[in-house]
Amino acid sequence: MNEERQQQLREGFSRSGMMQLLGAQLQVIGNGFCEIIVPRQDFMARPAGMFNGAVIASLVDVSSGYAAASAKPVDSYFTTVELKVNYLNPAIGESLIARASVIKNGKVISVVRADIYASGPEGETHAATSLVTMMQLSGKKSPRQPKSAAEDPAAEA
Amino acid sequence: MNEERQQQLREGFSRSGMMQLLGAQLQVIGNGFCEIIVPRQDFMARPAGMFNGAVIASLVDVSSGYAAASAKPVDSYFTTVELKVNYLNPAIGESLIARASVIKNGKVISVVRADIYASGPEGETHAATSLVTMMQLSGKKSPRQPKSAAEDPAAEA
Amino acid sequence: MNEERQQQLREGFSRSGMMQLLGAQLQVIGNGFCEIIVPRQDFMARPAGMFNGAVIASLVDVSSGYAAASAKPVDSYFTTVELKVNYLNPAIGESLIARASVIKNGKVISVVRADIYASGPEGETHAATSLVTMMQLSGKKSPRQPKSAAEDPAAEA
Amino acid sequence: MNEERQQQLREGFSRSGMMQLLGAQLQVIGNGFCEIIVPRQDFMARPAGMFNGAVIASLVDVSSGYAAASAKPVDSYFTTVELKVNYLNPAIGESLIARASVIKNGKVISVVRADIYASGPEGETHAATSLVTMMQLSGKKSPRQPKSAAEDPAAEA
Repeated sequence: MNEERQQQLREGFSRSGMMQLLGAQLQVIGNGFCEIIVPRQDFMARPAGMFNGAVIASLVDVSSGYAAASAKPVDSYFTTVELKVNYLNPAIGESLIARASVIKNGKVISVVRADIYASGPEGETHAATSLVTMMQLSGKKSPRQPKSAAEDPAAEA
Repeated sequence: MNEERQQQLREGFSRSGMMQLLGAQLQVIGNGFCEIIVPRQDFMARPAGMFNGAVIASLVDVSSGYAAASAKPVDSYFTTVELKVNYLNPAIGESLIARASVIKNGKVISVVRADIYASGPEGETHAATSLVTMMQLSGKKSPRQPKSAAEDPAAEA
Repeated sequence: MNEERQQQLREGFSRSGMMQLLGAQLQVIGNGFCEIIVPRQDFMARPAGMFNGAVIASLVDVSSGYAAASAKPVDSYFTTVELKVNYLNPAIGESLIARASVIKNGKVISVVRADIYASGPEGETHAATSLVTMMQLSGKKSPRQPKSAAEDPAAEA
Repeated sequence: MNEERQQQLREGFSRSGMMQLLGAQLQVIGNGFCEIIVPRQDFMARPAGMFNGAVIASLVDVSSGYAAASAKPVDSYFTTVELKVNYLNPAIGESLIARASVIKNGKVISVVRADIYASGPEGETHAATSLVTMMQLSGKKSPRQPKSAAEDPAAEA
């Protein structure tokens, strides 16, 4: 992934109201991989203390979108066709970590697997795994569309 | 669904930090059905204007949990095993409406379908459909457990 | 759906080795809906007597492909992007009935719900429900491609 | 996995009418992993030559069932709660290989990922990936039930 694409995706992430709300940090982005960290806030927790499933599903969606986008050139946009999440273990910890990897980088359809971990003093717990289908909306044939690039670099951001 | 169960679920909903954040209103709850409305806020929107997929996935999870819980007696708790969402149309509108219906009300496993609509001046758009698998954690054999009832009436709330 | 399309899809179905093996009958096809019946054979049954999940998953795939194809003009071909099946009740009966309906008939992506019923002397049991994502491969812009039409009318047939 | 469990699962596999029909061979079974090979037969192929999606979905279901069962003691039985398959690449080759691994070996719910490869002279193609949710029906508390063991060792076999 070139510098321009990385910058484009990082700017899109920093502008996302949803990511700001979650206090999400884009740790790693590039070549079909994305890692996002979300420190725990009160509204994210169920009464029993673990992160709720809604925050986990949100992270699956967003991290998959950025992973798919990072495997494509500048100004490629994606929309989520469908996502499927399996919740594996209670997400108990001080932060959530999403790690999303592109499995299939197709011309139109990209398939991504995102794994969500809850991280605490005793290490990481595998909270959820997923499969996400994304569709590329534009950018394939026209690698430069500077105007919209400033607006919505990753479709699900 | 009796009065006590309805009240238990409504109280749980009103205590949920996530639902408060979304400004979500529990419109209808009972007998395996649940309707939730979320008025649009800035952080929910993608740059192009539609509700983002993360809010939609969150609503799928929460509405399915309440629908499943509403088909069971007081003090039955659920956890989400897995969820799968298909995004059908851009969710353009002033509010999101989730309507979740129990398809299978099993002893251990409940299966729910939640449909998400974007509502605006020109009517409703079918934004997403889903299938959600929930597992009952407790309450089957012991219909009254007042202590925990005050804490987490619906597992995914 | 015009006569030519109906005939094209029925011919494709009758040529499918998989459908012949299952003894499957295409009962209804048209306008985004498809019904297929499969009489029970020994190899389809688990030791306990119900239809096995593999035959059900196969029917989900095939019926969704024909439903999607029936909403498009002659010589439109589909491939299955992904499918998700929830098994609801033991599929006990003398035949399986698949009923598939298009939920979203998009330009590239179609989303179909297929429900599978086990039919016996005491009526129908809802054995499984599903969501299937299909992608149109060709035919959108060129409604007539007679040569390939004879070969593979429905991508998953 | 002890000898007795391995033998129990291999006997169940060899008795399965569905597996006999597919000419399927159980290559590896044990400790939450299962590998099955299916040589190509005419009825499995679509007109264009690749394995059809129905055979792939069947293999996902069966291999996941055996993988889940292999992580449990003798006389544990599973049923498939739901399965989700993403088709990644055309399954062109002389045989299909299913490799299924348990991700979560829970008390009630097991989650398995099955990957399907098409194998030919030029190597393996990643045809499909999946996530499968299985529920244990029995065997947890009573490790020996010799009578039923002879009948249906793996629920989805």
